[in-house]
Amino acid sequence: MVRKNHRFTLAARPSGMVRPSDFSYEQEDLREPGDGEMVVAVRYISLDPAMRGWMNEGKSYVPPVKIGEVMRAFAIGRVVESNHPRFAVGDHVSGLFGVQEFALSDGRDVFPGDPRLAPLPVMLGTLGMPGLTAYFGLLDIGKPVAGQTVVVSGAAGAVGSVVGQIAKLKGCRAVGIAGGPDKCRYLGEIGFDAAIDYKAVDVKAALREHCPKGIDVYFDNVGGDILDAALTQLARNARVVICGAISQYNNATPVKGPSNYLSLLVNRASMTGMVVMDFAPRFPAALAEMAQWLAAGKLRSREDIVRGLETFPHALLKLFTGENHGKLVLEVAQA
Amino acid sequence: MVRKNHRFTLAARPSGMVRPSDFSYEQEDLREPGDGEMVVAVRYISLDPAMRGWMNEGKSYVPPVKIGEVMRAFAIGRVVESNHPRFAVGDHVSGLFGVQEFALSDGRDVFPGDPRLAPLPVMLGTLGMPGLTAYFGLLDIGKPVAGQTVVVSGAAGAVGSVVGQIAKLKGCRAVGIAGGPDKCRYLGEIGFDAAIDYKAVDVKAALREHCPKGIDVYFDNVGGDILDAALTQLARNARVVICGAISQYNNATPVKGPSNYLSLLVNRASMTGMVVMDFAPRFPAALAEMAQWLAAGKLRSREDIVRGLETFPHALLKLFTGENHGKLVLEVAQA
Repeated sequence: MVRKNHRFTLAARPSGMVRPSDFSYEQEDLREPGDGEMVVAVRYISLDPAMRGWMNEGKSYVPPVKIGEVMRAFAIGRVVESNHPRFAVGDHVSGLFGVQEFALSDGRDVFPGDPRLAPLPVMLGTLGMPGLTAYFGLLDIGKPVAGQTVVVSGAAGAVGSVVGQIAKLKGCRAVGIAGGPDKCRYLGEIGFDAAIDYKAVDVKAALREHCPKGIDVYFDNVGGDILDAALTQLARNARVVICGAISQYNNATPVKGPSNYLSLLVNRASMTGMVVMDFAPRFPAALAEMAQWLAAGKLRSREDIVRGLETFPHALLKLFTGENHGKLVLEVAQA
Repeated sequence: MVRKNHRFTLAARPSGMVRPSDFSYEQEDLREPGDGEMVVAVRYISLDPAMRGWMNEGKSYVPPVKIGEVMRAFAIGRVVESNHPRFAVGDHVSGLFGVQEFALSDGRDVFPGDPRLAPLPVMLGTLGMPGLTAYFGLLDIGKPVAGQTVVVSGAAGAVGSVVGQIAKLKGCRAVGIAGGPDKCRYLGEIGFDAAIDYKAVDVKAALREHCPKGIDVYFDNVGGDILDAALTQLARNARVVICGAISQYNNATPVKGPSNYLSLLVNRASMTGMVVMDFAPRFPAALAEMAQWLAAGKLRSREDIVRGLETFPHALLKLFTGENHGKLVLEVAQA
């Protein structure tokens, strides 16, 4: 049986905002899996800000996607054919399967998924890379202490919403920065102490109001002016976690550096970058803890599910315009 | 006996480059020391980049100098009159005595000085705040490991020259960035492995050449484009020490933030600010260790001594034009 595989490949490197024409929609005949390989029918594809970085040329923490190569993406699906010793037909698995219907995999960096633990899309969000990024970024780099103030930008997103909720679980004050009244209302629903709508108010003044003792941990997903505003309000010995910079990813001009970085000196503060894959050996323990929190209702998860592989280029754009509410996931209609 | 005291007070807050007219040269009749007070005849005044920051309005790690107040400065001198239980006439002392001939002091934050250990100007440089800043900034924040590469900007200055020499003492490769052939030659004389003349070469390319395995510790005294160039060459898990930003202190425009700060993310690196006074309890032990290095010829010190209190406003400018060679010290001619 020859499987027809539909997929999106990278057609051009974007300059500035990513455009649908940067991708090419293709059909191929999937080759048979070789020895030690398997075929995964992709069910849900995770759309993440990091994907924008993978489209750029140049050195980063992973090599760029090549022109003509399937667009890289985390996804979850089911094994439909297997010559792999560890994975059997019917197994749920997650990994970098790409933006396509079927993935050939040799099992490297593939994680088994248990659909009884949580719905599959949650395994791409709160119980996936975004949740793990929040967990290790906040706890290992941010090192929050009960009673301290944690501020997170992109707070209604897949990473930010988990950062704020874990901050609350650890006895901290959680302040979220997000765009628009809907997202800010959502932050209240999931337990943030305060929400700052950066589209409506002066972020610096709002941080001063909501963080009267200063910011002890600032978890940054956005960069740009919001990072700069947060730097002005740091408490002594504050920790700034650099997780991402979505406001800067589609710039055609150079990245805007944080002009208030000397606040690090005045406040004896640090700013540290993190990449979640460095914590891979500790993923199982973290996922087990977060799954318990989810089951106990202490951690809440929201997904924004867009249907149909062919909608991918436009669905991805929602991330950068801030239109998504919760973890953005593309559902692949199975043949 | 009424002492005539000459001094410089802050006349205006500079906008952009500091100007001689920002100071006022005054004569006053020194009042008699009260109970627990003493009079210090100032002999050497330390001219430091940090003084520019003290002239600005606004929150920093110390309050700004007030208009009309004597300009703040570290200095060293001798007690000439004392009602203080711990200090006697003839004692050498250092402290924030200001830009003046005589200082009234209650002994707070005053350190005894032993002129047998080193010449007095050295106690304002290598065995003073600049040397201590280098010592704690490099060892406690930079945490260099033998075999790693340490890069320092402002490398021929009072802080930078000590950073590079301690890096060598700890078995590291030391690369210095300085302006002009004289300063770069000096770096070679005191043992740096390489010197980069930022006025003559492309700093980014030179860092790539001299740090083939990347920068493990970057000690920044200058900010601006040089900080940005260093960020592009970080090694995995690098530590950036933010000690100062002399290139930005006299800006009339906002500080230039490091646009390559996302290199912290890619390289899992950190950027941390430091203020030397936080390490005050450990000053005696550090000074003892550095005095041994000096005596053994393992640490070399150079002072640029300008004579005459009245030359202060022009002498200070040398720091910002980069004209000084070594620790800039003002010698006060004693009456």
